[in-house]
Amino acid sequence: MSAKFAVLGHGVVGSGVVELFYKNKNSIENRAGTEMDIKYILDLRDFPDSPYKDKFTKNFDDILNDDEVTAVAECMGGVEPAFTFIKALLEKGKSVSTSNKELVAEKGDILLKTAKDNNCNFFFEASVGGAIPIIRPLHRCLAANNIYKTAGILNGTTNFILTKMYNDNMPFDEALKLAQELGYAEKDPTADVEGHDACRKICIISSLVFGKHVYPKSVYTKGISEIQLCDVSSADILGYAIKLVAEVKRNNNGKILPVVMPMLVPHENIMSGVSDVFNAVLVYGDGIDQTMFYGRGAGKLPTASAVLGDVIEAVKHNVTVFSQSWDSAEDDSFIDSVENFSARWYFRTSSDHTPSTGISDTYDVHEDGTEYAFVTYEVLTFAQAKNISEKINALAFFPVLD
Amino acid sequence: MSAKFAVLGHGVVGSGVVELFYKNKNSIENRAGTEMDIKYILDLRDFPDSPYKDKFTKNFDDILNDDEVTAVAECMGGVEPAFTFIKALLEKGKSVSTSNKELVAEKGDILLKTAKDNNCNFFFEASVGGAIPIIRPLHRCLAANNIYKTAGILNGTTNFILTKMYNDNMPFDEALKLAQELGYAEKDPTADVEGHDACRKICIISSLVFGKHVYPKSVYTKGISEIQLCDVSSADILGYAIKLVAEVKRNNNGKILPVVMPMLVPHENIMSGVSDVFNAVLVYGDGIDQTMFYGRGAGKLPTASAVLGDVIEAVKHNVTVFSQSWDSAEDDSFIDSVENFSARWYFRTSSDHTPSTGISDTYDVHEDGTEYAFVTYEVLTFAQAKNISEKINALAFFPVLD
Repeated sequence: MSAKFAVLGHGVVGSGVVELFYKNKNSIENRAGTEMDIKYILDLRDFPDSPYKDKFTKNFDDILNDDEVTAVAECMGGVEPAFTFIKALLEKGKSVSTSNKELVAEKGDILLKTAKDNNCNFFFEASVGGAIPIIRPLHRCLAANNIYKTAGILNGTTNFILTKMYNDNMPFDEALKLAQELGYAEKDPTADVEGHDACRKICIISSLVFGKHVYPKSVYTKGISEIQLCDVSSADILGYAIKLVAEVKRNNNGKILPVVMPMLVPHENIMSGVSDVFNAVLVYGDGIDQTMFYGRGAGKLPTASAVLGDVIEAVKHNVTVFSQSWDSAEDDSFIDSVENFSARWYFRTSSDHTPSTGISDTYDVHEDGTEYAFVTYEVLTFAQAKNISEKINALAFFPVLD
Repeated sequence: MSAKFAVLGHGVVGSGVVELFYKNKNSIENRAGTEMDIKYILDLRDFPDSPYKDKFTKNFDDILNDDEVTAVAECMGGVEPAFTFIKALLEKGKSVSTSNKELVAEKGDILLKTAKDNNCNFFFEASVGGAIPIIRPLHRCLAANNIYKTAGILNGTTNFILTKMYNDNMPFDEALKLAQELGYAEKDPTADVEGHDACRKICIISSLVFGKHVYPKSVYTKGISEIQLCDVSSADILGYAIKLVAEVKRNNNGKILPVVMPMLVPHENIMSGVSDVFNAVLVYGDGIDQTMFYGRGAGKLPTASAVLGDVIEAVKHNVTVFSQSWDSAEDDSFIDSVENFSARWYFRTSSDHTPSTGISDTYDVHEDGTEYAFVTYEVLTFAQAKNISEKINALAFFPVLD
């Protein structure tokens, strides 16, 4: 018996899936326990020089209606037509693996239900953290845990920019330009720089860990475009690296609180050493204490590795893996208000901060010319921190990762 | 239907399995897709005050002969009687999950074959890296990769000692004493300090990644007892942290080379920030480039979390997971000689090293009173490095992690 699969899209990730599959075909077949081959590659463009040119089709129905195709790798990106295609495939009982974080964050619940109803699988390991195995470990390896928090560096572009600001004292604009030159950032870098990409990924993690679909619009999201070099250097002197952190935790009121914000990560925290385009996710559970997963969050072969790992799983499993799933959410009342977000806080101000802040004590103060930067001892809510920020005319304020 | 399992041993790990299971029973049953309960706890001691005292038995046959028990967590440690018990359980078709690295390193191939022959599973996620999911990611999530190298900090005791030497300038003997006081090191610390514990773990990883059983006796193993404070500080000045690294790679001659040695880890390498009792494993593959798994390598609940994660998997799978397996090795001809181990090297010597070393150039030199410490630019084999070490009367020499 030979398992046949199809690849939707022959862009960066899709061509990576084809390349990696044929490179490691023998060992992949050993791990899958069956012969495997790619039967179709869907793309509207022509690839006359491809060694696999006979496999190309422009017609999605060729794949949909071929009973021999039991698994599909979706590497097109965007919500449509990916959503329509995947839903149709799942309804035919074909398992789908995707790297499409936008789609999973917007429509994951619907596609997971469709997969369950048709006894097949909708897998999306590649949608968070690229090459990093995080989805499967979260619901399988850590299944014995009550996971109460995850915190991650989930966007490589912003981490590259922040690393340049930290290591080379390069201003934000210049670092962004370099990221664009190196192909790490898009011409329109909004989705990365303003945190929307990280937001989609924390939505997926939140949905999986807490069991209900979290939509991007429910998540407070702040990017890195306002971070100044003086914040990066003051934070460093105070003992922290500034990172764009996507976090979700269960609060004491039982609600969950996902956020994307620049945060100060203590130098002692392993995550402060995650540099350049690398991503990492820290997971906190009552059994494990904390565990971190680290690796390349994007790129052709890293993402292809995750998609293909899922295809191999899909070939091995002929029933739905029900632990990798979540329910639709009727509303977002299970999500806490960001006003309740609690942390110690970093403030930078040009006025003398000590009087009138209402802060009983501060952790450490760095004075730089006419400016002060300090981190509070006290844990304050976002609402309280905003209030203080106004009182002292703060030029910047960020939470400290706990 | 309710799945019943048994726990062998009620020491630190075994009691942790019982505690964590009842703490998270509801969510565990959701993830397993079935009701679950512990039917037996095997221990020769009495636990009259345990809330689960009715489940205790001193008779292994109670478990072996109870058809209702389909999965077993082995938390006794040591090769015997664990091996005899587990083999008998697997022959009855009961899946077994273990944290027993000594057993897996010595007898893993036999038990994996027994499991396969009886269509059940022998799982051992907890045997390497405690709470860290590493075994399942290696053979499932990274299944599309040709993994050519892994390098890990696999022993928490030695990492704690090296962290104290690095952070607090504490001599080895004093740091070891502190580790013993804190319960991180045994009264007889040989297995940890001389690298035997890390060796067992790299045997398990090597066997899984490369498919043939690697025995501890085939692995060159050097511990940390000879590391001096001056090496730690010179390495730091040169840009490195000294860590006990357990590594395996496939050499160009097709053989694999597992070793356990103190190595210099560059400060830029994320693994240099793995401190205290934490463990980490870096995995290198042709798709992923590199990915790291980090967390607590030992302890009651972290280890219990991994054992219990495997029990949940065993309950979900009623067939052998054949990708998590390896073959017996007839001999160790597939293992390369340590003489061929290649790296850049750190040397410390009291003589002027520049003449007569045969080294064309050195990377950087730190001069401390009458001693010199330097790292070579050139990659040298272990055989060459030993030769140079003799020529210059080196007081210490260690490889640099690549």
